[in-house]
Amino acid sequence: MKVLITSGGTTEPIDEVRGISNFATGSLGKLAAEKFLQAGHEVFLLAGLQAVLPENDAHLTHIPIEGTKDLYQQMEKLVPKMDVVIHSMAVSDYRPVYMTGLENFSGSLSVDELLDYRPEQVGKISSKSDHQIMLLEKTPKIISYIKKWNPKVLLFGFKLLVGVENSELLHVAREKLLTTEADFILANDLKNIEGQKHKALLVSKNEVTALDTKSEIADSLLKISEELKND
Amino acid sequence: MKVLITSGGTTEPIDEVRGISNFATGSLGKLAAEKFLQAGHEVFLLAGLQAVLPENDAHLTHIPIEGTKDLYQQMEKLVPKMDVVIHSMAVSDYRPVYMTGLENFSGSLSVDELLDYRPEQVGKISSKSDHQIMLLEKTPKIISYIKKWNPKVLLFGFKLLVGVENSELLHVAREKLLTTEADFILANDLKNIEGQKHKALLVSKNEVTALDTKSEIADSLLKISEELKND
Repeated sequence: MKVLITSGGTTEPIDEVRGISNFATGSLGKLAAEKFLQAGHEVFLLAGLQAVLPENDAHLTHIPIEGTKDLYQQMEKLVPKMDVVIHSMAVSDYRPVYMTGLENFSGSLSVDELLDYRPEQVGKISSKSDHQIMLLEKTPKIISYIKKWNPKVLLFGFKLLVGVENSELLHVAREKLLTTEADFILANDLKNIEGQKHKALLVSKNEVTALDTKSEIADSLLKISEELKND
Repeated sequence: MKVLITSGGTTEPIDEVRGISNFATGSLGKLAAEKFLQAGHEVFLLAGLQAVLPENDAHLTHIPIEGTKDLYQQMEKLVPKMDVVIHSMAVSDYRPVYMTGLENFSGSLSVDELLDYRPEQVGKISSKSDHQIMLLEKTPKIISYIKKWNPKVLLFGFKLLVGVENSELLHVAREKLLTTEADFILANDLKNIEGQKHKALLVSKNEVTALDTKSEIADSLLKISEELKND
């Protein structure tokens, strides 16, 4: 079976020398890739530039990913050919529209002015101002396109929160199941991830499974995929 | 002789899952470290988390650096003991003060309001708003402290610009010589850096030397250091 795994984090450029990065090591994506490879499946790994990677393997295709645009283009091309998508990458929710010295605004300004303003494009933003202001816009929610590109694919989505109760995690996961049409959402909290320890709830329409380690998570992803897609 | 080299880029957190990173591979810092080690000197390498690193060596101390605060603390401690400082790291000029949904401002807002506003601290900023606004403040210019911490140290500063003429590069380098009290500024343009090719002007009060490769730059740093500091 053909499995697409996204892992690591994206980076959205601010100018030519800096960008906004999502922190993610890619450890879980690497482990999942290894388990699927060991079980004889074909793995396409779309990984952020700083993500840890599995060893080379004849059945592994590694595609480095920089920003959300990059990720969108690669997924649009690959998803239709896949049996399973494990979308564990930390994808930027926002990308910079502009960053400019606050002195370019004087007195008071309207929200519309902020939205419409466009400073001259420069290769590197000067460091003369005491304060800068940045406008950011939402990136497309790539996960919402996956079932449109391939209605039959088995889709695992991920949701990371920070410092919430389990009930909130479950609530957000169930919401995301609906909005993304994912078959499963792996909901986890940064406060419960450290090294191999990785507490998570694997949530589907009818079930919730609590998992405790990266290895348990990767095993579950493989087991469910083989049950539902191997024919 | 004792040499402190900074390399790679810093990352300033926005929240617990994302930050602003300066892109820099750390290749030049790595090469300089190798040349100084080969010549028998003691090297302290302060490197960004994504920087490439030299092989382990009995005379190499590697200290990983995340943000500007981290860098400041380490340098304050180490610079007084050094003979030479090569400050090649791409250091964030700005750090986020806050990022918040644009809907938190309505109608018109004054520059003072923007500066004074402080949203509630959260672990991960929600992705519900269509637009976010970020206020950034200038970070301390660490290079300006180096000669205060150690007036006798031989200081090489770096200035990276993007897409400018050589005359502008030289002008900015000379300005930086004065403001930072550096002995030399290595001025370079991102458009003229690619793999081993690395065009740069090494500028001191009385001299300008044009260099073409990373290797030539590292050799010059070593040669000048040995001439001026070996006794």
